[in-house]
Amino acid sequence: MYGFDPLETPAVETLDALGKFLPDTDRPNEGVFAWRDDGDWIALRYDLTAPLARVAAQYRNTLPLPYRRYAIGPVWRNEKPGVGRFRQFYQCDADTVGTSSMAADAELCILTATVLDAVGIPQPEYRIRINNRKILDGVLQAAGILDPDNPEAGAEMRGTVLRAMDKLDRLGPEGVRLLLGKGRKDASGDFTKGAGLTGVQLDVVMQFLASGVADAGKTLSCLEDLVGGTGSGADGVAELSEMMQLVSAHGAASGCVVDPSVVRGLAYYTGPVIEAELLFTVTDAKGRSQQFGSIAGGGRYDGLVRRFTGQDVPATGISIGIDRLLAALKARQPNLDAAGPVIVTVMDRDQMPEYQLMAAELRAAGIRAEVFLGNARNIGRQMKYADQRNAPVAVIAGSQEREQGVVQLKDLLLGRKLAEGASHEEWKARPSQLAVPRSQLVEQVRRLLTQG
Amino acid sequence: MYGFDPLETPAVETLDALGKFLPDTDRPNEGVFAWRDDGDWIALRYDLTAPLARVAAQYRNTLPLPYRRYAIGPVWRNEKPGVGRFRQFYQCDADTVGTSSMAADAELCILTATVLDAVGIPQPEYRIRINNRKILDGVLQAAGILDPDNPEAGAEMRGTVLRAMDKLDRLGPEGVRLLLGKGRKDASGDFTKGAGLTGVQLDVVMQFLASGVADAGKTLSCLEDLVGGTGSGADGVAELSEMMQLVSAHGAASGCVVDPSVVRGLAYYTGPVIEAELLFTVTDAKGRSQQFGSIAGGGRYDGLVRRFTGQDVPATGISIGIDRLLAALKARQPNLDAAGPVIVTVMDRDQMPEYQLMAAELRAAGIRAEVFLGNARNIGRQMKYADQRNAPVAVIAGSQEREQGVVQLKDLLLGRKLAEGASHEEWKARPSQLAVPRSQLVEQVRRLLTQG
Repeated sequence: MYGFDPLETPAVETLDALGKFLPDTDRPNEGVFAWRDDGDWIALRYDLTAPLARVAAQYRNTLPLPYRRYAIGPVWRNEKPGVGRFRQFYQCDADTVGTSSMAADAELCILTATVLDAVGIPQPEYRIRINNRKILDGVLQAAGILDPDNPEAGAEMRGTVLRAMDKLDRLGPEGVRLLLGKGRKDASGDFTKGAGLTGVQLDVVMQFLASGVADAGKTLSCLEDLVGGTGSGADGVAELSEMMQLVSAHGAASGCVVDPSVVRGLAYYTGPVIEAELLFTVTDAKGRSQQFGSIAGGGRYDGLVRRFTGQDVPATGISIGIDRLLAALKARQPNLDAAGPVIVTVMDRDQMPEYQLMAAELRAAGIRAEVFLGNARNIGRQMKYADQRNAPVAVIAGSQEREQGVVQLKDLLLGRKLAEGASHEEWKARPSQLAVPRSQLVEQVRRLLTQG
Repeated sequence: MYGFDPLETPAVETLDALGKFLPDTDRPNEGVFAWRDDGDWIALRYDLTAPLARVAAQYRNTLPLPYRRYAIGPVWRNEKPGVGRFRQFYQCDADTVGTSSMAADAELCILTATVLDAVGIPQPEYRIRINNRKILDGVLQAAGILDPDNPEAGAEMRGTVLRAMDKLDRLGPEGVRLLLGKGRKDASGDFTKGAGLTGVQLDVVMQFLASGVADAGKTLSCLEDLVGGTGSGADGVAELSEMMQLVSAHGAASGCVVDPSVVRGLAYYTGPVIEAELLFTVTDAKGRSQQFGSIAGGGRYDGLVRRFTGQDVPATGISIGIDRLLAALKARQPNLDAAGPVIVTVMDRDQMPEYQLMAAELRAAGIRAEVFLGNARNIGRQMKYADQRNAPVAVIAGSQEREQGVVQLKDLLLGRKLAEGASHEEWKARPSQLAVPRSQLVEQVRRLLTQG
């Protein structure tokens, strides 16, 4: 709908092509599954962005520019799995390569809002938080912990600062202040070493974080005051301002807010960064109620293609976490179970071709159906199986039925309804099992399914 | 439709769980991408069957039995890539675990036929060839090269025999006879060592291969004569006969034939084996016309779950090669290109919000649309981009149009038609560019698209 073309890339790339952009992790290989094959180091992709940069570089002479692609596929992170955190998960990405226009970044926000609306998560149940890495560079410069003439110095400490800022939502201002300073002891007693900022440096960063308010205009002028004095900061505020203007022109994007605490973990971002989160609460495994949280993220990575070609190719993209999105939809609609197939039971093994014909007739009419293929001739076992499969109807045809030219249809939906407490009237009005002429199999099953 | 439930398993499994079932290859690790992680050997799955066996074993107490699952996903083979042969490719599998009924195997043939019909490849453009590994064991016993009391002895030689039999289609009887005997020199002069069968052994195998005729009944009685004397052979013929009877009862399966030369490369098959091939010819990269060939394969693997549990769990499945199927569909319909998006050109950068609104209106009406996000203000570059994207319509709105409250619509479909030689009448009847009121943008674009 947005003009993005599909692109599929291999799951395996050379380690060099993927680059090292994951945040610090507790495992070797920087969180990547990598191994040596015929002398080369190869690895499973950790996102869909690095492979896109490789493709954009490799086919730069034949791809239309800007190149707009979407991709859906699994990615792998070599991390400790945890609740809602898997080593293999699905991402759906949309990226525009070859444009520095903020319109491309704004479009990604609108796209994300449209996707959430389309899957049934409307405003105000989500929020799309927008920031700009150049503004973050600006505040680091203003705090005196980033020297634009020597950007490598103090990189590790700045990483600690950015990770602390990213935790504002979770830990609140006091927690972040501790992590920026000497360190913080969490509820379990574990101590996290802080960034060791001085009092003045701390104030600059905390004031910056406090500039995130509901009104984008006020936040922007506040940011202008704080970081506008640095080159990076001024550029970042101008970009963010242009982006917000484009987003605001679009009615559907009312969920977009400027939020100076958005950092994004991946090291390749260079400009706008975007993070979408769901605001409704869910109950976790321990019965605690908490906000669903992050569902999508992205940003601009103007330097990623240059790694291959040496030429500047600006690019920006968004990545939606598919497993997270499905979990969110399931949390909202827990009874979203797929209906099971109609089960044709086997009363008489010799009649297998006839049972398969029944299933074929139902399938041809668009009804999901299968013949019971287990070994049990016992009807009880077969009914138990139908129940496990959430089957709506069971078809029963033994020798007696065959002689009479009928089949028995067992209404299992009704059975489950009764178990859930249907009324006596419903029970009387609708027999749970009925004999119908063999020739009416399809229409009678369909009748049971539609009245279900 | 057939009652199979979706199951997704990880791409990465332990090497032990996957087992060693791939045919001999020219690479180490038996054709698998494998590496050591925290001391354990793990690997990318080489098919979807071995992971299913692992799941069926692990969750055997909670899964309904028979367990019917389908899966679609990438698999990896560490082989030399070639024409139509990739190291990553997609499979779509349907399997039934927990039944020894031939009805399950027959159903897979019917399912495959239904899928091919559904994607627009009808009879007689495909053929589903069916055989049984027990019959192959029978002929190996009859030829005196398999001792049922010592099944390990001579396994390597038997592998050579089976691979030779599998090549009947490609090499013809004479080629196979050479491979079964002393060996064969191919057109390029390369020599392949043969299995070294004696004259009598050779005759038994060749007679077996010759029993594949058009009539399933005749083939079966011929096979009965040849291998019915061995326990395996008699079982195999009985199974094959039951399976063909069930398939025949189903009208849609007229493309199914008994073919004694079907072997299937994977080592885990124990009973029926199935191979579906497309019979129409395609032109290969070198301009040679050849039959499209294999598109799906599968069979029964009664021992695969036992590897984990020690208990017998019969199972059978089919795997459709998705990339192969897409290639086949493309070969039949080479002009199956997706239509590009409507391109809203950028005449005036300040008007970006208005251009984005136009795209949003088109999208809301279900029309794929995008604003040109490149840097070129030059209309020629933008038109070239629209052409590269196969765009049907370009929207042009500069300051003059804005003052008049109109937009220009450029009919690019017509332009391409003219290039392909549309008539002068068409050209006159349909202007290639027209001004329409801004308020009629959506309906006028839709009019151009539907008359396209």
